[in-house]
Amino acid sequence: MTPFNTVGLIARQGNRSIVESVAILEHFLKQRRVSIVVEKSTAALLPKCAHRIEDRKVLGGICDLLIVVGGDGSLLGVARDLAGSQVPVIGVNRGGLGFLADIAPNQIEAKIGAVLDGEYTVEHRFLLDATVVRGGRRIGGSSALNDVVVHAGTMSRMMEFALHIDEKFVYDQRSDGLIVATPTGSTAYALSAGGPIMHPSLDAIVVVPMFPHTLTSRPLVVPSASRIKVVIGPTTSTNPQISCDSQVDFGVQPGDEIRIQKYGHALRLLYSREHSFYEACRSKLDWASRLGGPVRME
Amino acid sequence: MTPFNTVGLIARQGNRSIVESVAILEHFLKQRRVSIVVEKSTAALLPKCAHRIEDRKVLGGICDLLIVVGGDGSLLGVARDLAGSQVPVIGVNRGGLGFLADIAPNQIEAKIGAVLDGEYTVEHRFLLDATVVRGGRRIGGSSALNDVVVHAGTMSRMMEFALHIDEKFVYDQRSDGLIVATPTGSTAYALSAGGPIMHPSLDAIVVVPMFPHTLTSRPLVVPSASRIKVVIGPTTSTNPQISCDSQVDFGVQPGDEIRIQKYGHALRLLYSREHSFYEACRSKLDWASRLGGPVRME
Amino acid sequence: MTPFNTVGLIARQGNRSIVESVAILEHFLKQRRVSIVVEKSTAALLPKCAHRIEDRKVLGGICDLLIVVGGDGSLLGVARDLAGSQVPVIGVNRGGLGFLADIAPNQIEAKIGAVLDGEYTVEHRFLLDATVVRGGRRIGGSSALNDVVVHAGTMSRMMEFALHIDEKFVYDQRSDGLIVATPTGSTAYALSAGGPIMHPSLDAIVVVPMFPHTLTSRPLVVPSASRIKVVIGPTTSTNPQISCDSQVDFGVQPGDEIRIQKYGHALRLLYSREHSFYEACRSKLDWASRLGGPVRME
Amino acid sequence: MTPFNTVGLIARQGNRSIVESVAILEHFLKQRRVSIVVEKSTAALLPKCAHRIEDRKVLGGICDLLIVVGGDGSLLGVARDLAGSQVPVIGVNRGGLGFLADIAPNQIEAKIGAVLDGEYTVEHRFLLDATVVRGGRRIGGSSALNDVVVHAGTMSRMMEFALHIDEKFVYDQRSDGLIVATPTGSTAYALSAGGPIMHPSLDAIVVVPMFPHTLTSRPLVVPSASRIKVVIGPTTSTNPQISCDSQVDFGVQPGDEIRIQKYGHALRLLYSREHSFYEACRSKLDWASRLGGPVRME
Repeated sequence: MTPFNTVGLIARQGNRSIVESVAILEHFLKQRRVSIVVEKSTAALLPKCAHRIEDRKVLGGICDLLIVVGGDGSLLGVARDLAGSQVPVIGVNRGGLGFLADIAPNQIEAKIGAVLDGEYTVEHRFLLDATVVRGGRRIGGSSALNDVVVHAGTMSRMMEFALHIDEKFVYDQRSDGLIVATPTGSTAYALSAGGPIMHPSLDAIVVVPMFPHTLTSRPLVVPSASRIKVVIGPTTSTNPQISCDSQVDFGVQPGDEIRIQKYGHALRLLYSREHSFYEACRSKLDWASRLGGPVRME
Repeated sequence: MTPFNTVGLIARQGNRSIVESVAILEHFLKQRRVSIVVEKSTAALLPKCAHRIEDRKVLGGICDLLIVVGGDGSLLGVARDLAGSQVPVIGVNRGGLGFLADIAPNQIEAKIGAVLDGEYTVEHRFLLDATVVRGGRRIGGSSALNDVVVHAGTMSRMMEFALHIDEKFVYDQRSDGLIVATPTGSTAYALSAGGPIMHPSLDAIVVVPMFPHTLTSRPLVVPSASRIKVVIGPTTSTNPQISCDSQVDFGVQPGDEIRIQKYGHALRLLYSREHSFYEACRSKLDWASRLGGPVRME
Repeated sequence: MTPFNTVGLIARQGNRSIVESVAILEHFLKQRRVSIVVEKSTAALLPKCAHRIEDRKVLGGICDLLIVVGGDGSLLGVARDLAGSQVPVIGVNRGGLGFLADIAPNQIEAKIGAVLDGEYTVEHRFLLDATVVRGGRRIGGSSALNDVVVHAGTMSRMMEFALHIDEKFVYDQRSDGLIVATPTGSTAYALSAGGPIMHPSLDAIVVVPMFPHTLTSRPLVVPSASRIKVVIGPTTSTNPQISCDSQVDFGVQPGDEIRIQKYGHALRLLYSREHSFYEACRSKLDWASRLGGPVRME
Repeated sequence: MTPFNTVGLIARQGNRSIVESVAILEHFLKQRRVSIVVEKSTAALLPKCAHRIEDRKVLGGICDLLIVVGGDGSLLGVARDLAGSQVPVIGVNRGGLGFLADIAPNQIEAKIGAVLDGEYTVEHRFLLDATVVRGGRRIGGSSALNDVVVHAGTMSRMMEFALHIDEKFVYDQRSDGLIVATPTGSTAYALSAGGPIMHPSLDAIVVVPMFPHTLTSRPLVVPSASRIKVVIGPTTSTNPQISCDSQVDFGVQPGDEIRIQKYGHALRLLYSREHSFYEACRSKLDWASRLGGPVRME
């Protein structure tokens, strides 16, 4: 008996390999006799789809499990949209690195089968909640699984801002912007900008300056319960923006405050039992690729 | 009424400015009518010392507060020796940066006075516990407040080792060594090696490679509950060493395991109420020193 | 007898301190009986300007020396516009760091006086020449004293490009962009992005990746005679741009080639005799600011 | 007709794969009827060696070409010992990365054959010359192809020194030491320490601080004609050392000066015609290994 009787199916739009994986997945799930619910835009990828079709927002309430076919980018969107519903999510990787979407296309039957049999681990990946406040009023906001980026809007132009954490002044900075990332996001954009790798189970947020004007600025790791506030400086002459997971953007202006803190609900991300974060780092980040020979010892 | 009736005095050996601060401190404490106990080696700095004189180890058991005159280095030693006794410690800075030893010499009366009046905050700074295991037997070890450094012993020569965290293989590495640091140590040696700054309240350990042979190695932040194991590689031809806080060293050899985890007792470090970690970073690390003018906004 | 009989005056627009320095400068130059030619937009800063007034482009042909009042940004513009004329240039710093504009406002009489007396050194600062080629045809371009930046246009979005140097393939890269900088530009944007500091007399160009997707990308220093070619990748979905000195921008599109090489004419930059590049680094980059005391030895 | 009638053979000591490559090489050279001269310690690797056997120092004067079997480390030693003789050198890689030793063991016949046929390019790789001066007198020194490292001797202990370039004071520094590297050495130890990659044809030296106490220290690239002077600080309490190519060491003491400048003779390093430095970087440093697919364009 599987703990997952109703399985939702969400796929990224766009190419043959995705359509192929969705077909394999549908066939396999039918064999396993679970109820399938297909996200509306995904249904177009399934010829003669006879399953229940629903809006993404509805899936969270009626499914026991969501399977997302795409890359890490697809999972980021699902996390922001559906983390609140607490439905478990697992990803089939048809994209790039695949830190989040763990299952390779040729492992669908074996690994999804194991998950349906109850063979899996759950990781709770917290999200950030970003709110833009102008003149004391909330004018916009979004959650983010990877990162909230405050940036100058125009590249190779600087902005000015003040950073406060837990009502304490941290620093004024002139730079291209600031990346505020979760452990999940620490292997994404923040890593390119010189941030540390953070284990997914760590209760921490990293703040990484982007091309700072001072040479003394370094990545700063604070507890995940921290309340982070960025105030856009008055002389910032560009069109600064906030970007959540590089997918949702807001324009801001001098004087605006961006308040960033832990979001109320964590994403419940399923992995196969043998999944190891360090193995993912080794294979995806090419750790240790320069060793003449192995020295691994037990 | 002060909560601190018996105050222990520990000072670094060596120069006139220390002797001067110790004299000011003794005079002030006598005025405040607290019992003074002087560490044995410190007594030599006090001409005609009429106070009780004890070994450092004894101070932890009989004092309500320890005042350490020196630099961060002096506090590191006191932390390793006396954290187990849970006696609160405060530092008068007569050394370098003074991230730990917060009180400037000219603030002794005002700030120590405030502490005796109950005006202070307590930070619990965790230590690491490093154990060297050879052939299954413990052959040495030490605690460390800042960091445990595994290094090649001879500079500009590489060593090989395998890193495991929580019984999971992380990577094999050829490098000059590895720095394993607490949040307290994140502003010390680990920072020079490219590690992030970690807020003192963070429950995390950072692992920073030293001049790694691969370009993909990055600082790694893990929960403070992690059990870290470094196994010295068989082809390491140098004389590798373990260094705790750059003050206590052990020689190791191929096949040895270094096990590093959170130490059982945290240092209880006192600060004056207005102390801010970020203010310390700004003043000691020259954050934001390049700004044309301030943009700080409330 | 001064070698500089006709002196051109160029000032940045905008604030009282600039107007003040221009007035002091004009007064001093009249005393020294040199002919003054004022750039058209600068004339507005001089009430009842009785000097010859000319377009910037004309100044290069008729002046023996140009004095630029502003910051490094003002000097960048003058360099791009007038380096071809080979007229010597000196800067009065009324802006930020002042690596290029060496003379502080309160040194105008002393230092400009010394220059008029023949007391100066000349540095030849080479510029880059950037050309955008589409379908084999040049569609735009500019020179740059600091750097040519190829970037994704939209921040926190990646672009793809191929880098070739001297007709040799170097690498394909996915990143936010690429900074190609002269030694002059090595203390500006390239430094924020992790590039090395290059001595102004070095015949070299540095290529610095911006937030590269791979952890193995590093700054690359090549001879200044190198011909650098960046080809925008076909899947770049943003609106990539070329930015010269962060002042002149061009939009580019997939398939476009950006060709970057040494510009035909170097800027002739004058400094007072005691000027030292390393002293400028020490004072402007806060080198060595953490030393407890000096160890300087001769 | 080959330009190389007398070929010297030098091999690293120690393992079967080296012996095998030496045998293949000797057999091939005999077929090509060139005179073979074997370095004394290498002769032990050739059973019944009937060739002329000479000390390494003699080989430079009597050979037209030296073939070195080993890794980059072997070539470093040959460069220091024999660069002065101007004999061309080529390397067969039986070691690690092989930036210098370009020929893979299975390419010996094809690539050495091509070289004997005149199919090769010559790169002139300059060396550094390091001299230790105490009280005005030279007390030691060595050349170095990769780098001269000034270091604290004891790891995770700092040293103090003053850096001067061309008689100009650059900075005082507290750190673990300083790496002074050639373009050849820029892909070795200096790269691990955060230095840039420098093209082999660049006339430049890079100075890279090792774990500096200040956050503002950065790699510094200066012309290869620069005269670099490091003065060991008076309070350095460790046993500082100078290391040339990590192979030749000197102990130094407070007050000693280390003078580093370009060595009088460059190594003449042969490569096969198709050799590309950027291809070596791509394959040995894993450049671009994270790209989903190639975007290379012509």
